[in-house]
This record gives sequence, C-alpha cells and structure tokens, in this order.
Amino acid sequence: MSDAERLAWLQLARTESVGPVAFRHLTQRYGSARAALQALPELARRAGRLIPPRIPSERVAQGEIEAGESMGAQLICGCEPAFPAALAAIDPPPPLVWALGDARLLQRRAVAIVGARVASAAGCRFARGLAADLGRTGLVVASGLARGVDAAAHEGALPTGTVAVLGGGIGDIYPPENEALYGAIAERGCIVSESEPRRRAQAKDFPRRNRLISGLSLAVVVVEAELKSGSLITARLAAEQGREVLAVPGSPLDPRARGCNDLIRQGAAICEGADDVLRAIDQIGGVRAPPAPPYAAPDEPSAALVGRVAGLLSPTPVHVDELARQVGAPPGEVFAALVELSLAGRAELMPGGMAAIA
Amino acid sequence: MSDAERLAWLQLARTESVGPVAFRHLTQRYGSARAALQALPELARRAGRLIPPRIPSERVAQGEIEAGESMGAQLICGCEPAFPAALAAIDPPPPLVWALGDARLLQRRAVAIVGARVASAAGCRFARGLAADLGRTGLVVASGLARGVDAAAHEGALPTGTVAVLGGGIGDIYPPENEALYGAIAERGCIVSESEPRRRAQAKDFPRRNRLISGLSLAVVVVEAELKSGSLITARLAAEQGREVLAVPGSPLDPRARGCNDLIRQGAAICEGADDVLRAIDQIGGVRAPPAPPYAAPDEPSAALVGRVAGLLSPTPVHVDELARQVGAPPGEVFAALVELSLAGRAELMPGGMAAIA
Repeated sequence: MSDAERLAWLQLARTESVGPVAFRHLTQRYGSARAALQALPELARRAGRLIPPRIPSERVAQGEIEAGESMGAQLICGCEPAFPAALAAIDPPPPLVWALGDARLLQRRAVAIVGARVASAAGCRFARGLAADLGRTGLVVASGLARGVDAAAHEGALPTGTVAVLGGGIGDIYPPENEALYGAIAERGCIVSESEPRRRAQAKDFPRRNRLISGLSLAVVVVEAELKSGSLITARLAAEQGREVLAVPGSPLDPRARGCNDLIRQGAAICEGADDVLRAIDQIGGVRAPPAPPYAAPDEPSAALVGRVAGLLSPTPVHVDELARQVGAPPGEVFAALVELSLAGRAELMPGGMAAIA
Repeated sequence: MSDAERLAWLQLARTESVGPVAFRHLTQRYGSARAALQALPELARRAGRLIPPRIPSERVAQGEIEAGESMGAQLICGCEPAFPAALAAIDPPPPLVWALGDARLLQRRAVAIVGARVASAAGCRFARGLAADLGRTGLVVASGLARGVDAAAHEGALPTGTVAVLGGGIGDIYPPENEALYGAIAERGCIVSESEPRRRAQAKDFPRRNRLISGLSLAVVVVEAELKSGSLITARLAAEQGREVLAVPGSPLDPRARGCNDLIRQGAAICEGADDVLRAIDQIGGVRAPPAPPYAAPDEPSAALVGRVAGLLSPTPVHVDELARQVGAPPGEVFAALVELSLAGRAELMPGGMAAIA
C-alpha cells in the first residue's frame, strides 16, 4: 500500500457521511480509496446533495497519522495483512484501526470479557480469574478498559496478552483511575481504537467500540450486567457477528445478574469457567470466512433509479433485495444507488444489506 | 372403603417386599387389598420363596392406625377421594400417606421449593420471598422441612398454605431446631409422610420423601444446591414425573450454585421469581391424567413362564415389553410373573415397567 493510497484511505474513512458500508462499497467499486475520493462529490451531488460532503484534506489526514505515530501507535488499514482477521470478517468491517503496543496480539485468537462498571467484588474476581485461565490456554482477552469487570479482565490477562478497545482515540485515557492499567496494556498488551487518536470519547462512540470488542473475538463472555446495559449490546452484536455468547449466571437478588440470566434465557451458554469458553469456541471452530461482499461490482445506477429508490425508503429498514424487486432493477445497481443516497444524507446504510431513510 | 379393607390396605402396603409397583398390580389383579393379601403367600411360594413374606398382623396395622390418630393424623389410602390427585398421577403412586393438619391443602395446586440445608442468607431470603409470592397467587408450597432452603420456603408460605413432607413418620421432628416450625405447619399447614407414624427417619427414607415432594407438586424449584445433592435428585424425579423443573441461577464462585446452574444447562427453566414459576405451570397446564396402569388385568402366569422370566433378568434394568418379546408371552402375563418374582425377592420392580434382578 503506497503512502498516497494510505492517506486517501484515511481521508475517505474520515469523510462525513461515509460509514463502513459505503466505505467498503466505494473502495471496491472504484478499485482504490483514491479513486473513490475523486468520484465522491459527483456521486453525492447526483443523489441530491447541494453542498459537497466535507472530505478532510491530505494535510488533516497527514496530521492524524503524525499524531498517532507520535504517540507510538500504528495505523492499520482494512486491506493490510496486519488487520485482524476476525475484525475483517464482520459485516461491515471497520475501514481502519489505530493500535498502540503489541499489534501482533491482534493476530491471535481472542475472547472478550465484558460486564458491569459498578461490578461486585465477586464479579471482578471471577473476571480476573477467567481472564488469567483463558490467557494460560493461549487466548488473548479483549475488553473495553471500563471500570469494574473490564478492568479486572485486562488485569487478569496482562501477563498473557490483552487488548483494550477504546471509544475515544488511542490516547484518550478513560476513566482516569485506569491510567496505570492503560500504561501497562500499552506496554505489554495492545490498545485499539477506530477513532482519531486525539479524540475524546463521546457517548456515540461506545456502540462502535462494542462492535470492535466483539468483532475482535471468537466469543463474548458477559460477567455481570444489569438489564439494558452496554454489555448486553455487545452480546447482541456478537451474536449478529456469528460469535459465541456466554453469560455468567448470578443470584436473582443481585440486579447485576439480571442481564446475564436474561441472556441465558435467550440461549447464551452458561459460563462457570474457562472450560465453558473453550468448549463454546471449539463448537464454532474459528471465525467464519468473510462473506463475499454483496453487490461488489455494481452497475452504475441511473439518476432515475436513485430517485425511485429514495422514494421507497422509510424509517423501517428494508433489505436491498426487497427494494430491487420493487423497482425491478439488479440488486447491485440498487445498492449503488443506496450508497449514493447515503452520501447525500438521504439514506442510512445498515449491516446485512438493510437501509432506511436517514 | 370399609374398615376391614382399610386395614388390609395398610397391611399390604407394609408387607415385606411389596413396593408400590407390586401394590398397585396386586390390588388391581385381585380387586381388593384383602384378596391380594390372601393370595400373596402362594404367589411368593410359586416364585421360589421358601419362607413366606412377613405380613404385619391386623393387630399391628391397627396399632399403626391408632398411633397416627392419637397424634391427630389421618391415614389417606390411594383409592380414597382425599388422596392428592397429583400424587395419584405418578408412576407408581404411593399406596397411602399419613397427613397431620389441614389435609385439604393436599387438594390444591402445589409447587415445591427445595434446596441446600447449608444455604446462604440470600438463598433463604429468596426461598422465603418466592414462597410468599407463590402463596399469594393461591399455590400451596411443598418442601421437606430440612434446614436452610426448605425451612425458609415453609416459613414464607405459612400464612397461605404449606405442606411439609417427612422421611420419617408424621411425628418424627427432624432436625430438632425446626420443632417450632413443625408445630406451626401441623397447626396451619399439613405434614405428610409415607412412613409408619412413629418411625425415625433413616437415610433410605429420603429418596422416597423426595419422590413425594415432587409428586405432590406441579413444579419443583431448586434454590441452592451443590452438585450431587438431594435437591438434584428431587429435580430428576420431578422431570421423570412430568413435572416442571426450575432452578435459581447463582454465581459460579458459590459451590451452592453449581447444582442449579447445572440444571439450567440441562434444560431447567431459570427461576428469578414467582412469574417464572407461574409461566412454567401455565405451559404444562396441570397434572397429566394418570396413565392407564400397565397390564392391569393380567393373565395368570404359568410356573414355567415365571422361571423363564427369572432366567432373563440381570442387574441391568429391562422393560417388560422386551421380556415379553423374548419369552413370546403377553406383557400382562410377564408383568404378573415379575411381580411374583419380586414377592420372592428375586426381581426388583421399577417405575415405567422396568425390572432387574434383585
């Protein structure tokens, strides 16, 4: 990968209204990020956008690279061999990640351990012990560097290999009391983030982080979780990504067990220790090969088609195949139209070929 | 039911080598307990028994009735309307029970709550609360008057209706610290036992008691249980009896949660509160109608057949239908032969039409 294409890759990934679905489509459709960048303003205009999307300049992208590298981190693009295979297999994969520390850990088989921030002492002890046990079998332990269960999991796996995924940039240490742990992971483990290295985490960054935690992992173990907690979102994402979901049961008298018990009701495997995780991983074998990207080489959509597809969208997500049936056009062409509409801010693209009105 | 038949019923039930399977067969085959008692010595002799089985005398049986009644208890025979319908539906039903207190509770829908004797404070609190909640919905709560979870369940359901099933006789208060609870249940609830009223419980009485606890109940909830504990036996019996099994999940760090978590792995429903129990009961509707007793009106087996069936038995249980195929005789006749062999101490009869060498 040339430095120029690397820069263009970063520019495209940071372009307003280019999400991971559009990113994959555009780089495949135009053969390179550079070519996609050049086509982008016209695509957006055709789909009805009046003001062209803001593409960060080469200088801004170069600034991000220099900022990350000055922190000691490395940028890993989705097309590079160093990009984690498990992460490349999710739909859609993130265009890139920043990695600080030992990026070779991202090549190894990983299991995520996540859970409550306000965890019980027993929950933290369990997470720490489980992480250590899994580490001894050669598995890397991934988590989110949050308080409670996350921190305990990282601590347990520090001697054997742990990956912390941040919502903010690679240098955004949060919560402050995990600063020493952050330092230890940066030195002996690996810190990973999709965000700009200097970015402070905002609420909207966490779903994306959760998708990365499960995406890096063969299985997700939820240790303690209240109902409607972020850990349950990670578990749902893991299931959608074809990864195993395990939950640690707990007393109904402890609200932190409700989420886990509920997962078990819904079919998550019971986790009472490392053996359960190993058994679950054995069952799935490994990460499934990335599915063939849908509609990889689309026909150029006509302006009329773009307009007709736009008219069919509603707040309820619909599959591209359904849209294709309704307009009587090939799915590849309809998908290309959807990407153009998303660049114009008129469509929202979702995993699995779904789309809704933006 | 005449007093004479009642006495014969008790004599037959207390006869050496007459278990509940043989009891049901004999009373059906001969039309009354009295007739069965008369036929019994000859049946045992034909099957190879040298010394006739010890049948308690009328005086001894009368003594049991007087002892029970002097304690304020009543004998309920399996053929009487007061006999609990849920208990009559198990295979095989116990021939009789003694009941002390409000025997009308045995007519109501019941749920069993069982668990560890050395239970945690949280486990006891949960059991007590669950029992109270179930009681408020009109369900009777059954348990075994043991320390820990059993006692807590009885306490919680004392105001609404609770049944304590004893391994020993109706007057055998065990453990001693539950004496006040025993008294309260005898007054406001119901104490039930299969044993002779004055009998002290022995280890071998408890599997029989556990079968009664689950047999009286639509569902069994296990609150805390170590692996290989008696509560798990009750749960297994409940499943065999077609009753619902629920388990309360708990932390893997607590050995008392292992049995419950293991039950959940094996398909038991998760119990986090009364709603879960009500949902489980709704699913099964009610106690299934008693299955038509197998081989109710058998042919008289020939001495030759009895000998051939005896020769086919081994320590591995085999079904009567399989034996019937092998000897080329009707199952009813083979079953009668098995009962005769059991009276001679040469066969062991099990639920579901299974038999093994004694």
